[in-house]
Amino acid sequence: MSYNLLKGKRGIIFGALDENSIAWKTAERVHEEGGVFVLSNAPIAMRMGTIDQLAAKTGSHIIPADATSEEDLQNLVEKSMELLGGKIDFVLHSIGMSVNVRKGKAYTDQKYDWTQKGTDVSAMSFHKVMQTLYKNDAMNEWGSIVALTYMAAQRVFPDYNDMADNKAYLESVARSFGYFFGRDHKVRVNTISQSPTATTAGQGVKGFDGFISYADKMSPLGNASALDCANYTVSLFSDLTRKVTLQNLFHDGGFSNMGVSDAVMEAFEKGQ
Amino acid sequence: MSYNLLKGKRGIIFGALDENSIAWKTAERVHEEGGVFVLSNAPIAMRMGTIDQLAAKTGSHIIPADATSEEDLQNLVEKSMELLGGKIDFVLHSIGMSVNVRKGKAYTDQKYDWTQKGTDVSAMSFHKVMQTLYKNDAMNEWGSIVALTYMAAQRVFPDYNDMADNKAYLESVARSFGYFFGRDHKVRVNTISQSPTATTAGQGVKGFDGFISYADKMSPLGNASALDCANYTVSLFSDLTRKVTLQNLFHDGGFSNMGVSDAVMEAFEKGQ
Amino acid sequence: MSYNLLKGKRGIIFGALDENSIAWKTAERVHEEGGVFVLSNAPIAMRMGTIDQLAAKTGSHIIPADATSEEDLQNLVEKSMELLGGKIDFVLHSIGMSVNVRKGKAYTDQKYDWTQKGTDVSAMSFHKVMQTLYKNDAMNEWGSIVALTYMAAQRVFPDYNDMADNKAYLESVARSFGYFFGRDHKVRVNTISQSPTATTAGQGVKGFDGFISYADKMSPLGNASALDCANYTVSLFSDLTRKVTLQNLFHDGGFSNMGVSDAVMEAFEKGQ
Amino acid sequence: MSYNLLKGKRGIIFGALDENSIAWKTAERVHEEGGVFVLSNAPIAMRMGTIDQLAAKTGSHIIPADATSEEDLQNLVEKSMELLGGKIDFVLHSIGMSVNVRKGKAYTDQKYDWTQKGTDVSAMSFHKVMQTLYKNDAMNEWGSIVALTYMAAQRVFPDYNDMADNKAYLESVARSFGYFFGRDHKVRVNTISQSPTATTAGQGVKGFDGFISYADKMSPLGNASALDCANYTVSLFSDLTRKVTLQNLFHDGGFSNMGVSDAVMEAFEKGQ
Repeated sequence: MSYNLLKGKRGIIFGALDENSIAWKTAERVHEEGGVFVLSNAPIAMRMGTIDQLAAKTGSHIIPADATSEEDLQNLVEKSMELLGGKIDFVLHSIGMSVNVRKGKAYTDQKYDWTQKGTDVSAMSFHKVMQTLYKNDAMNEWGSIVALTYMAAQRVFPDYNDMADNKAYLESVARSFGYFFGRDHKVRVNTISQSPTATTAGQGVKGFDGFISYADKMSPLGNASALDCANYTVSLFSDLTRKVTLQNLFHDGGFSNMGVSDAVMEAFEKGQ
Repeated sequence: MSYNLLKGKRGIIFGALDENSIAWKTAERVHEEGGVFVLSNAPIAMRMGTIDQLAAKTGSHIIPADATSEEDLQNLVEKSMELLGGKIDFVLHSIGMSVNVRKGKAYTDQKYDWTQKGTDVSAMSFHKVMQTLYKNDAMNEWGSIVALTYMAAQRVFPDYNDMADNKAYLESVARSFGYFFGRDHKVRVNTISQSPTATTAGQGVKGFDGFISYADKMSPLGNASALDCANYTVSLFSDLTRKVTLQNLFHDGGFSNMGVSDAVMEAFEKGQ
Repeated sequence: MSYNLLKGKRGIIFGALDENSIAWKTAERVHEEGGVFVLSNAPIAMRMGTIDQLAAKTGSHIIPADATSEEDLQNLVEKSMELLGGKIDFVLHSIGMSVNVRKGKAYTDQKYDWTQKGTDVSAMSFHKVMQTLYKNDAMNEWGSIVALTYMAAQRVFPDYNDMADNKAYLESVARSFGYFFGRDHKVRVNTISQSPTATTAGQGVKGFDGFISYADKMSPLGNASALDCANYTVSLFSDLTRKVTLQNLFHDGGFSNMGVSDAVMEAFEKGQ
Repeated sequence: MSYNLLKGKRGIIFGALDENSIAWKTAERVHEEGGVFVLSNAPIAMRMGTIDQLAAKTGSHIIPADATSEEDLQNLVEKSMELLGGKIDFVLHSIGMSVNVRKGKAYTDQKYDWTQKGTDVSAMSFHKVMQTLYKNDAMNEWGSIVALTYMAAQRVFPDYNDMADNKAYLESVARSFGYFFGRDHKVRVNTISQSPTATTAGQGVKGFDGFISYADKMSPLGNASALDCANYTVSLFSDLTRKVTLQNLFHDGGFSNMGVSDAVMEAFEKGQ
């Protein structure tokens, strides 16, 4: 589908690693809807992925940036406005990483240097992105900033480890910075709390396949896919949602408001 | 603006009284986006308003229905499918009325016949609408049902009286019925929790003008207008939001997640 | 245990049917803590239960009242103050009933006369109790009113049927009336959202045993029992919690903030 | 008042600076209720305050600890068990500090070294405290861990700056760690979200007096004082609340569920 919803809009999309990425699907859909953008990712992530193909397909430039580095972000914002020919209308932050998860450390046995690194990459980076945009007066009025998050920020999913706390911090940053960005520049800031999604990053989490199945059976509409999320993000970048701000928006087939579904209850009773 | 977002979609829109109505603006926007629909309102509301003009402008039929009457709703659903030529893709429920508010009864001095009447009109009517659609297998897969609500369902606004409790019931019905509609027919059900809006109905509430100003100064993006709400509703009827369900979605310029704004604090300190 | 926490306090306890009732356990614990009270129940519930034994054990009077009847409630409040020798310090509302559940009607096939009856008994009765107390100026300053509720008010439990919507209404009444009772009389109003509990009433719900086991395995501390709930209610009646008001308090071993537990995940994966 | 609620219980209380501190009042109330405890504070905070007087008054030992230092916490936990003669039953975490706030940096102009320092002190310290307790198997079954937080974790209070995000992280840690502590040791973990309180620390926040007045007029029961908070904390340390866990508990005279009060609305309208 294509509706020209983002015609004339310019943006920055963080975190497209490969074609399983939500950011990748979002870039494709934004392109179809007429938006133009710069792709950015951490130098190391760029070497692992295939972002060049996405850039070619969507006619986009790539500007590498470590999202924890104020210098890199300053360069990214300046260059993006130059390349795109004006201020920014939309931003997608899809960045997250826990060293404790990668190294197999339990939540009750954290190595705090790693915890701090994860918080910097996964959560404070969102503040840094917005502070750089704000200080450079780089956003157009009625622009839209979206970060991806997960419901572990509200409820316990034991294997999600310290990413739960990072996402809680990220969602708070959305509200806190969203106030100032709204008041001063009429820019909206929201987070999308997405179904567990079989991205390359998500696959690192222990027991992920079983959990995806659990979430799917719990949700009256089933899990939302990466493409579904891209579509939803397009709606939040469009002019149809100008007054939605400071919100954490669940995009999950209904999971977040389920206590239990018939399907999960049935499997549970059989499995006891 | 117009993107053809609802081309080929059929719907029912309840509650367009006059051009200040959110439902009226929604009908206009849905029409612009290519959707076709039946307009419905209570017989008494139709005599007070100007719905004929809206029908003419949008090429729509009007089918009067008391939304508390199962018979009227059955007739409405049957006739709508006939007139529109197929099953329904979208429904807007914008119906609410409190006799206690109208008659000036305090929340601590309710007349319970009136309370019950208000609950029937404002909240159970949403269940009745959905039950009629469900029993008649009248919704297409990936259809979208939206009801308008207000944040008094979560937080106290003293003058909102028993409408607060009615809206809490309404939002619960959205979740409860949304589960079955999703599981069985892949239909999504959500509520939009809208800024206070200067509709003809809203103007009945005591101290409404002052409150609109308060909400506007509290919200980083200011209050959402009826037209803003129509745009947001269009996004929820479109195929961009297929996996959003069971949600209560705040559409309020950020009010719902504010503790206090600088602007409100300033007026408060001066006024003390 | 006994700490004399409620010495000198007078109250009304609704809904003690038999020794499985939360209200029964609460009456016993309040008695141990030095509180005095009147027991009240619907005439029909009194014939089915064994409330006389509880009255004897705790030295309490019984005053039958249909909690949907303003006349009965007026009589109850007047007589209670007479019998107890002064204004009321604490009230427990533990009343709920759905005719649709009893008669086996699905949520998508409600008989609305029954729905309305259930709302009146389960939810509006709480408003009626408070309005009667408020109009008679029957509560002491720093008094505490508690109603029991269930998390189906926030999240979907398919078998809970229309009781979900009734509980949402009840919780809203607690907030709405709590504002006026706090502002005018320094009385606090809260709801306790309790684990599924094997009361005589609870046992009527379809699939209840399986669900109790599911909730127990989901909760890091296991389900809260009726006695646990009685203890918690005592803390809310005591002077230790004077500034807690308008809250819905989850008392459920942690269930409400769980996404999934290891124990549930294990049973789910085996049962798939 | 004194009920012997904590007789035989041992604990650690962090963060008593001077007699305005919530932790100070809590220590006094816990002492009155029969609990014994170790007081701990950062070395620098101990030099600024008067904690020696509190130790003398309550017959407690003081063990200095930088709550960001795993070594200090290990020493504290070991020594506390020695001094108190057994495992720990209750812990109060009342620690928070933002360098950005102290140095007057705006939220949109953060110095990220300071942000990171604030997160470590205010939020990760809570994880470190619990991890140390957990690894040392230092908590008794049915023990209770409480941290103090503020509603800026959910809603925007512009002057609260980066403490808002720190509190969101802290509350998430309570849930995440609470799951493992509950599952493995039957220990409960909760946060109390307290009214703005005129502590020595709180007084550093810009515009704090005006805000305290705003919160007071918004809350149907007025603001909760430090002593009120101490009482509430006692109830959460007691055996009356054993099944309450993973919760963020608002203790604020009702503020958290208010949309607007008559008193605030009146001042606002005068001040416009």
